[in-house]
Amino acid sequence: MTLSPAKAVRPTSSPEVAPPKAHPLPPSDSRERVSSAFKGLQDRICQKLEAVDGGGKFQQDAWKRPEGGGGRSRVMKEGNILEQGGVGFSEVWGDKLPPSILVKRPEAEGHQFYATGTSMVLHPRNPYIPTVHLNYRYFEAGPVWWFGGGIDLTPYYITEADVTHFHKTLKETCDRHNSQYYPNFKRWCDEYFYLKHRDEPRGVGGIFFDYQNGQRGELYRGHNQDGPAALYSKEAGTAPKRSWEEIFQFAIDCGDAFLPSYIPIVEKYADKPYGQRERDFQLYRRGRYVEFNLVFDRGTLFGLQTNGRTESILMSLPPMVRWEYSYAPEPGTPEAKLYDVFLKPQDWANK
Amino acid sequence: MTLSPAKAVRPTSSPEVAPPKAHPLPPSDSRERVSSAFKGLQDRICQKLEAVDGGGKFQQDAWKRPEGGGGRSRVMKEGNILEQGGVGFSEVWGDKLPPSILVKRPEAEGHQFYATGTSMVLHPRNPYIPTVHLNYRYFEAGPVWWFGGGIDLTPYYITEADVTHFHKTLKETCDRHNSQYYPNFKRWCDEYFYLKHRDEPRGVGGIFFDYQNGQRGELYRGHNQDGPAALYSKEAGTAPKRSWEEIFQFAIDCGDAFLPSYIPIVEKYADKPYGQRERDFQLYRRGRYVEFNLVFDRGTLFGLQTNGRTESILMSLPPMVRWEYSYAPEPGTPEAKLYDVFLKPQDWANK
Repeated sequence: MTLSPAKAVRPTSSPEVAPPKAHPLPPSDSRERVSSAFKGLQDRICQKLEAVDGGGKFQQDAWKRPEGGGGRSRVMKEGNILEQGGVGFSEVWGDKLPPSILVKRPEAEGHQFYATGTSMVLHPRNPYIPTVHLNYRYFEAGPVWWFGGGIDLTPYYITEADVTHFHKTLKETCDRHNSQYYPNFKRWCDEYFYLKHRDEPRGVGGIFFDYQNGQRGELYRGHNQDGPAALYSKEAGTAPKRSWEEIFQFAIDCGDAFLPSYIPIVEKYADKPYGQRERDFQLYRRGRYVEFNLVFDRGTLFGLQTNGRTESILMSLPPMVRWEYSYAPEPGTPEAKLYDVFLKPQDWANK
Repeated sequence: MTLSPAKAVRPTSSPEVAPPKAHPLPPSDSRERVSSAFKGLQDRICQKLEAVDGGGKFQQDAWKRPEGGGGRSRVMKEGNILEQGGVGFSEVWGDKLPPSILVKRPEAEGHQFYATGTSMVLHPRNPYIPTVHLNYRYFEAGPVWWFGGGIDLTPYYITEADVTHFHKTLKETCDRHNSQYYPNFKRWCDEYFYLKHRDEPRGVGGIFFDYQNGQRGELYRGHNQDGPAALYSKEAGTAPKRSWEEIFQFAIDCGDAFLPSYIPIVEKYADKPYGQRERDFQLYRRGRYVEFNLVFDRGTLFGLQTNGRTESILMSLPPMVRWEYSYAPEPGTPEAKLYDVFLKPQDWANK
């Protein structure tokens, strides 16, 4: 693993580019602290998943990026529970900002960038266990920095109680930091993980946020940017200013909310029998996951634009997928219930 | 099927938007003639494919687009030879030009657009038979019109002679119109059907062209726009001006070159035995097809941006696909030969 570049070589301001706002600068050891915390998160998740799986092991590939940085990709193939699971850590830096960042943050132009994150997608074998995704990330470039990320659940067959458990666990973590976090980041998740061309949410959501650097108002920044404009009202609240330390701690706590939100659902369904019908539906619905990741996902776009390691970026794709022209579930079946009940955004944490 | 709007209601010029060039206007019945020819092409392809398959039948869905237009999607599922095949015709019009067009042709702004095309993707069951794609299309908006399209072959296991047969058939059709067509449109195909994030061509190519309206120089317009810049030299030739009639006839002739270019390969391999190894490799390589279609394909992008019929746009996706983290073929195997020999652009027609 290459060490991240020393803070001293990072230009924190540039005479040509005046920052439009006085962003509070991160601490001098921000990069080391965040990357160390994200590696720890990757370690804790992989250890627990191996223990729960009881068979599969993660294989690690450490890799370097020629332009700066690298990562450690960990993949479990053919486990007892996980048909495939990928948990990646990466840390990249360079002089050339990717276009997807410059569109959102023109004031980062001309600065060296640094980005680190932990990403995970699990594809369980049993269709009763949902697919799940986690990503937490940190970005710095000159006067610009932010945290982003989230966790969301994509079930095939599920109960209301499971979805409520998942959301309540995330809400409890959010509420320990700020009571406005969960309702706003739950909404942002519903809007972001949305397949416009299918007019369909990816799953039952979770939480998602981006561009958090403690400025007032940014809790609401994601609203109606990506998803269906009419899903929620446009009213905005007010948020307190928050420090780098507070947001850093919040991102790590969210990462650690994953295991208690998800593992009980895995344990509940691990031994539930299923047949070809359930397997076929799971493979079909995995196609939506592929469509979202390749057409809409900002993380995938960022990775491909920054000459990231393709195998690591695309390890989120499922090991087996089906498409079926003009498929629609029979009314009244468990498959129809996914569409009718669960693919409708609702206040799961308060049911 | 809704009839296309009468030519009389189409604004051919707008006082605010002066066309930058004097484009020759298409004949007054251009829309009817092109859509009729593209429907005929769809009919001929479907009839022949059913005869060759000897079992599967195409099921047709006729559909309307609320904003104007519609189409007829034909899908064969679980044929003897075709695991899935989709052959679509569509014809759409409207006032709101999609962003992907305006980027390339700003002078179309403010005009009603009309677009029609025939598209086909075939996913044979037997891994010895290549996947193949065809698309021919026509676009009009105010002073702007053009033909585009192509045919390209994506094999799993193949011989040099098969690839040469495929390319020679396309070259013969091109040469009947203009000796500069094949070398230029073959190159354009290699550059367009290219997966940047894999540093890999999609297959062994074929021909591809876009924005052809008879102006001088546009034979070369695609060069180095999409693919690897170093693949070919940058030298440009000169092309004669050509009429709407000539380009229309060329597009239809190219469409009709598909059956003789592909069917002999189908017949050669239809009964060749294969095992799980060949099937696994086919499913894995189909993943590249999905990646290209969802990340790069302009037709897919156009369809999704114009609120096209999602099931018809995505009927090109394979019925079953695999991804495998960090797969690479063993050196010296038939699978390695695909990468080492066939995924290297070369002058197949003159071998």
